[in-house]
Amino acid sequence: MNKARLRVPGPTEVPERVLSKMAFPMINHRGDEFRNLYLKVCSEIKYVFQTENDVLIFPSAGTGVMEAAISNFFSPGDLIVSFQCGVFGERFAEIAKAYGANVEVIKAEYGMPITKEMVRDRIKKDKNYEIKGILFTQNETSTGVLNDIKALKEAVGDHPALIIVDAISSLGAVELKTDEWGIDVVVSSSQKAFMLPPGLGFISISEKAWKAYEYSKMPKYYFDIKKAKNTLQKGETPYTPFVSLIYALEESLKIIKEEGLENIIRKHKKISEALRAGIKAIKLKPFVKDDYASPTVTAVEIPEEYKDLTKTLKNKFNITVAGGQGSLKGKIMRIGHLGYVDFLDIIAVISALEMAIGDEKLFGKGIKAAEKKYLEGGI
Amino acid sequence: MNKARLRVPGPTEVPERVLSKMAFPMINHRGDEFRNLYLKVCSEIKYVFQTENDVLIFPSAGTGVMEAAISNFFSPGDLIVSFQCGVFGERFAEIAKAYGANVEVIKAEYGMPITKEMVRDRIKKDKNYEIKGILFTQNETSTGVLNDIKALKEAVGDHPALIIVDAISSLGAVELKTDEWGIDVVVSSSQKAFMLPPGLGFISISEKAWKAYEYSKMPKYYFDIKKAKNTLQKGETPYTPFVSLIYALEESLKIIKEEGLENIIRKHKKISEALRAGIKAIKLKPFVKDDYASPTVTAVEIPEEYKDLTKTLKNKFNITVAGGQGSLKGKIMRIGHLGYVDFLDIIAVISALEMAIGDEKLFGKGIKAAEKKYLEGGI
Repeated sequence: MNKARLRVPGPTEVPERVLSKMAFPMINHRGDEFRNLYLKVCSEIKYVFQTENDVLIFPSAGTGVMEAAISNFFSPGDLIVSFQCGVFGERFAEIAKAYGANVEVIKAEYGMPITKEMVRDRIKKDKNYEIKGILFTQNETSTGVLNDIKALKEAVGDHPALIIVDAISSLGAVELKTDEWGIDVVVSSSQKAFMLPPGLGFISISEKAWKAYEYSKMPKYYFDIKKAKNTLQKGETPYTPFVSLIYALEESLKIIKEEGLENIIRKHKKISEALRAGIKAIKLKPFVKDDYASPTVTAVEIPEEYKDLTKTLKNKFNITVAGGQGSLKGKIMRIGHLGYVDFLDIIAVISALEMAIGDEKLFGKGIKAAEKKYLEGGI
Repeated sequence: MNKARLRVPGPTEVPERVLSKMAFPMINHRGDEFRNLYLKVCSEIKYVFQTENDVLIFPSAGTGVMEAAISNFFSPGDLIVSFQCGVFGERFAEIAKAYGANVEVIKAEYGMPITKEMVRDRIKKDKNYEIKGILFTQNETSTGVLNDIKALKEAVGDHPALIIVDAISSLGAVELKTDEWGIDVVVSSSQKAFMLPPGLGFISISEKAWKAYEYSKMPKYYFDIKKAKNTLQKGETPYTPFVSLIYALEESLKIIKEEGLENIIRKHKKISEALRAGIKAIKLKPFVKDDYASPTVTAVEIPEEYKDLTKTLKNKFNITVAGGQGSLKGKIMRIGHLGYVDFLDIIAVISALEMAIGDEKLFGKGIKAAEKKYLEGGI
């Protein structure tokens, strides 16, 4: 049996150093030991968010903090513009609708990013500042598209709407300068670049967003950020925290600090570029163009003649990649390369693809292209 | 930072299923829970040894059970013939000498195996059956040579000497039919094909060897097999057992049984052949010929122009391979591929070697050759 190689875009593999923390003993979550730990991680996580804003941690999936990013800042009837280019953009809008917002959807087709023009055009029309919130997805996991949040924020200009970014599958792997770019709310989740098991949602909140909180009339309880902030001041959580994952988070933040965020971001970019070079060399086609390709997940078109590519990777090599979602089901496969992953992990995927395709003339070709790309500019 | 890839010929990587057992709670080693566990593993381990003989477990390194394989069966002055082709064969002889045996050494040069002729010639001369013991090393880890134990045993014929085999780096990865071939004593160790952390030594003992025990006058205490056998009958050990590793052994034996020894042996052979094909394609030279190449460790000559190959693998790719031992220091590197390892692990090593050598013309060449070889005969 081959080793299990998990190459989905989250959960990612978890470093042994982190996994071992999951086996630490339980402690009283109202005791000093937990308090010190919790205050420490809530402070240190700001480094990954590149922010001085509050960052709160909820025991939840990523979708939970997406909900928090809506219900804490808006009121029913508020106009929220949702820029979408895939399943996760759509989800953000669905949450806003469920809470009674007046959601306006602006879509790019699957495989394409949101453009500055799309944002600028909409903002221009909003003479009376009716838009209260703007939803972006930094990394659209369903298609492998990276939206240029910096440029999109610039396109928003000084419009007073809250800028809310789903950075679930990008934060800690892709540049996101929360404060420098002026992003009000950023949400992320443990099982992505944080290299943790699933279970924690993270949300950063700007001062402007805290002001919006005061006027928000949407119902909230579990995800109430004010309650979470108030208890955090005592080093506690409103409800029982996920103790094991807090231990693990302490360790993963340590690893991220040791490696340096810049190096980690660079690593993801290099790996992604090398993978794309390798894929093209064995005549597979990345689903999106290089210009806006995600550094954390690469969607590859499944050619008609290799319909079973994903199955072959699984059955013959025990590599698990993700399939397409929604209308892309069966049309693409998505190779995750975020968090605890390195270039040689990607070499393994390319080699397995070469063998799965089975054309001897292509053997080694993908690897060669990937190696060349990877070595560009030194390692 | 790249992931740590441990490619030394032991300790090997340990499956997560096994590692997690190392964190199980301590139990009383004189209680029923331990007794049941211990009786179970001591019985199930016979499958790997392919024997109905007793197999005893000692909390020790492999060298400990090598010592047990001498001190329990011989008396000072006994003639023991040590067939050696590397450092570990030499060690076996040193132990015998330390215990006062009259050791005769028959050597093959480093990189060559022991031949049937070498054995047959010596046996022929022993008209009066003066030889009491014959020491073989199945897999000479220091050079990557596999000795053909079946053929060597046939060359011994019906000479009454005890046949003692060091199978530390081969048992469970290479065919060794203890009973069918008539091997009296086989020793092995946990950190090799058993996929465990170091700490356990294993020894199988034939009926003939038990008879020899009765006459043995070499001193022994910790490694006294009779004491171990007597306490085993009660499900106990003479001295405190390595409880965590016994839990882990239970799990690794389960994995070995699930996969099937034959499949595991075949896997090691295929991986080794593919690695050798890959190495040759990038103009590196395996230290030993295909005919007697080890399926668990491959020694590669270090070319003058790539003196730092081992360092580069470590520093740039975090792959740890072993260096040469004794007079081979600096001349070879040894790539371990036993236990918890699969083909894509070896692809990673070949890719790293391609990049470490850095000749773009060779990029992908080693991978291509390895993929072709690996797919021969199906996977």
